[in-house]
Amino acid sequence: MNEVARPPLVVTMGDACGIGPEIVGMAWARGALGSAVVCGDVAVMRRALAATGLAAPVARIDSPADVPQVPPGALPVWQPAGLPDGLAALAWGRIEAAAGAAAARCIEAAVEEVVAGRALALVTAPIHKEALSAAGVPYPGHTEMLQALAARHAGRAEAPAVRMMLANEELRVVLVTIHVALRRAIELLDVAGIVETLRITHAAGQRFGLATPRIAVAGLNPHAGEGGLFGDEEIRIIAPAIAAARAEGIDATGPYAPDTVFMRAREAPGHPGAFDFVVAMTHDHGLIPVKYLGVEQGVNVTLGLPFVRTSPDHGTAFDLAGTGRADPSSLEAAVRMARRLAGG
Amino acid sequence: MNEVARPPLVVTMGDACGIGPEIVGMAWARGALGSAVVCGDVAVMRRALAATGLAAPVARIDSPADVPQVPPGALPVWQPAGLPDGLAALAWGRIEAAAGAAAARCIEAAVEEVVAGRALALVTAPIHKEALSAAGVPYPGHTEMLQALAARHAGRAEAPAVRMMLANEELRVVLVTIHVALRRAIELLDVAGIVETLRITHAAGQRFGLATPRIAVAGLNPHAGEGGLFGDEEIRIIAPAIAAARAEGIDATGPYAPDTVFMRAREAPGHPGAFDFVVAMTHDHGLIPVKYLGVEQGVNVTLGLPFVRTSPDHGTAFDLAGTGRADPSSLEAAVRMARRLAGG
Repeated sequence: MNEVARPPLVVTMGDACGIGPEIVGMAWARGALGSAVVCGDVAVMRRALAATGLAAPVARIDSPADVPQVPPGALPVWQPAGLPDGLAALAWGRIEAAAGAAAARCIEAAVEEVVAGRALALVTAPIHKEALSAAGVPYPGHTEMLQALAARHAGRAEAPAVRMMLANEELRVVLVTIHVALRRAIELLDVAGIVETLRITHAAGQRFGLATPRIAVAGLNPHAGEGGLFGDEEIRIIAPAIAAARAEGIDATGPYAPDTVFMRAREAPGHPGAFDFVVAMTHDHGLIPVKYLGVEQGVNVTLGLPFVRTSPDHGTAFDLAGTGRADPSSLEAAVRMARRLAGG
Repeated sequence: MNEVARPPLVVTMGDACGIGPEIVGMAWARGALGSAVVCGDVAVMRRALAATGLAAPVARIDSPADVPQVPPGALPVWQPAGLPDGLAALAWGRIEAAAGAAAARCIEAAVEEVVAGRALALVTAPIHKEALSAAGVPYPGHTEMLQALAARHAGRAEAPAVRMMLANEELRVVLVTIHVALRRAIELLDVAGIVETLRITHAAGQRFGLATPRIAVAGLNPHAGEGGLFGDEEIRIIAPAIAAARAEGIDATGPYAPDTVFMRAREAPGHPGAFDFVVAMTHDHGLIPVKYLGVEQGVNVTLGLPFVRTSPDHGTAFDLAGTGRADPSSLEAAVRMARRLAGG
């Protein structure tokens, strides 16, 4: 495939007062962004480069398509119309409505390019929930905003069903439930939701180039319920969902005991993983193993959107913003993952 | 301390038809048992040594105190009175009432020695729940049997409160709830149960030689509830329990987000653990990280008994019994842990 002919990846700068702009600058300086374009505020990105001790110039471009015209050694920044003024004068590490508005505007503009095929995939630097809220943005975070934008572009009222995948070099975990009380997560489990998760996971595996991805389904209860002795969700809900997915040709197996399935799926030198994905019923069953060896390489992938979107697995880290001490590794891993998923 | 003067560790052989006898023999042959004595059937232990290709002799002794008289190169086996005949003629890998009865009798005899101070600590090889049941033993497993024996020896009707600790080279995790449905585990959480867990953990830490062990308490809900947004058990139950324990001088902190607390506690080269113990609310929150890197080094420790008891973190593995292919690593780690906890 001719790389020059492919549209570029878009990386949004995130909240201007957080570590987003500087990790984007650092990743770029380390060569980890390749031919990606940054969607952000030119002055904010200049300030971020300065904060990390990088003397490189910023090249302002009018659209992602102009990336090839950027001279080598300059950071390509596409500044969409409609960003508030004075962003680069905001103090680091503060909740600012202007920063929230700018972050949202960048996401919106970037999605437009990706949906139109003028950008390959979307990588988002961290935004701040309260800054979004201060700006009157009606979404609590990236995921909800991306779902709404996807629905708008498709001309549909209903947002596409999405699932959160967390991945590192060893594991890919897809979550059935996420940010709800554990008690509520148990109540929310149903056959349809698990089957949908398995379909979304299967499709993601095919994007990874796996014809029939091997999907392990973790149980909910200790020992996956031990035949109903410690809970019956495996019998009532999870096993029927696996059977339904298998009837559609999906290679889902389980339910497996939660305490050993991640160990079995782990892909490491001398330890070939027994599965390509693990589907976990709850936020922490899934995230404890992904984060156990460190969060530096963790990548968040939103599965189910009509385009590829990844992000680093951390937040705006206001306490570090502007210090140049933030670690761009997770963002870099997110860029690699986006490129792999988008075939770029 | 003069090692000769210390009483020996006792290792029970476990179910005669499982891998217990052979992993005990293998661990001994590798020098991992030190001056420990095996509590078991002499003929069963002979068969186990033969099954693993070891030509070493077995030295039958009448009490743990006789270990020093065993000639070098012989496996010291103390066979308590009351074992059924013909154990060594039973087929490997089968549920046998006689094997269940023998396993229970060995545990009972070994506890007597430990309680009387004639043995330092107890390490138990795996037993089989159904074999125990076939023998009419009124306990589903080691833990309940040990609680009952401890109560009997103390002349009390009420069994001591115990907690399961799983430990490996990197982590020590203590569980508030274990083998119950996740839904039920949530219902079972209360301030008293968590405070008791913290007291038991603190006492265990002192046995490890830590004056004030650093105990991290994991939350129950995603992000430890995020201030009540995703569940209120942290606010209603876990935080008050931590406060009560702190008022007693216990260095308990949290509740921490379950998905990152284990990573923070992890003790590895270049990664000093931030805590000595993590207390987890549920079986799988605690066991997923302990098992993630493999089960070979995992040790199960019953905290709260009036003596030290550890065991390997696996079962009888009937499919492997008699093949000599079982891995004694977890048993060996259990012996090291028992010695450390008992100051031997």
